Amino acid sequence: MSEAELTEAELNEAAAFAGRLADEAGAVALRYYRQPVTVETKADASPVTRADREAERAMRTLIESEYPSDGIVGEEHGRERDGASRQWVLDPIDGTRSFVTGVPLFGTLIALAVDGVPLVGVIDQPVTRDRWVGVAGAPTTLNGAPVRTRACPAIAAATVSTTGEEFLEGPGELEAFSRVRAAAGAFRRVPDCYGYAMLASGFVDLVVEAGLKSWDLAALRPVIEGAGGVVTDWNGKPLDLGSDGRIAAAGDAACHAQALDTLDWRG
Amino acid sequence: MSEAELTEAELNEAAAFAGRLADEAGAVALRYYRQPVTVETKADASPVTRADREAERAMRTLIESEYPSDGIVGEEHGRERDGASRQWVLDPIDGTRSFVTGVPLFGTLIALAVDGVPLVGVIDQPVTRDRWVGVAGAPTTLNGAPVRTRACPAIAAATVSTTGEEFLEGPGELEAFSRVRAAAGAFRRVPDCYGYAMLASGFVDLVVEAGLKSWDLAALRPVIEGAGGVVTDWNGKPLDLGSDGRIAAAGDAACHAQALDTLDWRG
Repeated sequence: MSEAELTEAELNEAAAFAGRLADEAGAVALRYYRQPVTVETKADASPVTRADREAERAMRTLIESEYPSDGIVGEEHGRERDGASRQWVLDPIDGTRSFVTGVPLFGTLIALAVDGVPLVGVIDQPVTRDRWVGVAGAPTTLNGAPVRTRACPAIAAATVSTTGEEFLEGPGELEAFSRVRAAAGAFRRVPDCYGYAMLASGFVDLVVEAGLKSWDLAALRPVIEGAGGVVTDWNGKPLDLGSDGRIAAAGDAACHAQALDTLDWRG
Repeated sequence: MSEAELTEAELNEAAAFAGRLADEAGAVALRYYRQPVTVETKADASPVTRADREAERAMRTLIESEYPSDGIVGEEHGRERDGASRQWVLDPIDGTRSFVTGVPLFGTLIALAVDGVPLVGVIDQPVTRDRWVGVAGAPTTLNGAPVRTRACPAIAAATVSTTGEEFLEGPGELEAFSRVRAAAGAFRRVPDCYGYAMLASGFVDLVVEAGLKSWDLAALRPVIEGAGGVVTDWNGKPLDLGSDGRIAAAGDAACHAQALDTLDWRG
């Protein structure tokens, strides 16, 4: 099944279901938010808590109940039905560092990908009650109202954002990012999914990051594209579940082109 | 008039009034939050908007009406009655960079200082509706409920926070901070007043910054001390309106002592 074969009704049904998944995950996150919680360190040095695990478990239970033949890819509990065309891609708490510090910039990321292409994406922030929903071919909404990226044709006028320079760890990544930062008009560190959400809403012009996993990036494409923006890897390839984790997102296509030129990435 | 001469009733009256000031400023900030707003750059390269100016104006109007003989020091509109013993110290939007990026980590800072010593402090976050109130000699509250810093006697186990390394601009400041960061167990960038608020609530152990002005720092002392923490300059001197803007705040006195040793500052 490809994008052309998913009807508008099927896309909208998936978006509504993704909202129910976000409700489940958000309820768990809020139960542990600003409570003392044990922080464990995973093999990749990133933190995890029981909130991450329970929030993902709640979403998986609902998927198993309602769409038992769909596949699942989740940050904390791995894969189910790897060969299915439809895959739910879950990051229960994107921004666990913020979460454990009491900072409301984490979010739940949910995507439905079909044959590897994300067609529905949700970025949900339970503390501030902000929910961005993106559906292929439709306008992105924030809490039901359409949002648009802002015009910014020149990188020199752009506000560029990244989670933190220390996450540009691969060879040449920090240098490439630093060229973009130097070319841009302003720099902000907006962590994790919140930066992309602010891009979709027109308060950030560029987000450049690396090291994202499929569950970090799948939801971004429907949200950003539906808001009028462009999001690809550093070579200009649209995001799919096989992306290499290097992300260049822009609210304005002209700015995106300049960012790619400035990154000058030969991956 | 010194601290000893302010009665508990006077302190509580001032704290209640500071809450009314926060209501005024927050209403203005929310009106402009996540709206397109022109960002101007001040002489010190920091951004300012009409939201900053109007929020401070609203607070000043209320002070002029209720405490016309008190002095005022505000970030955007300067000083009134410089010689008064009682001074209201106002930062309408601490974290304008967050504010204009749509990120709810800015806050209104309000302090009442008597003879230069801050005795009442409010950190107010209007989007998340979080209000920390500190009063000399009393427990700090978050939305009315007492909050406490967490125990962290060893800097090696501490989570240290700062707004961003680029704000440690003075000679030797970044090097001193970097020693603390290297000694600490974890590092988070929590911008502006939000880092101190999270320290008061027990989710951050150390905040080390430089370059703060009187309106950035006056509210911090009552909030942090009332939550069981310690906040001084890098030489260990308690904060007052004449502080040099270098701040070392800790939730645990033992951790604070180790942070000062590690900063090894000879200012």
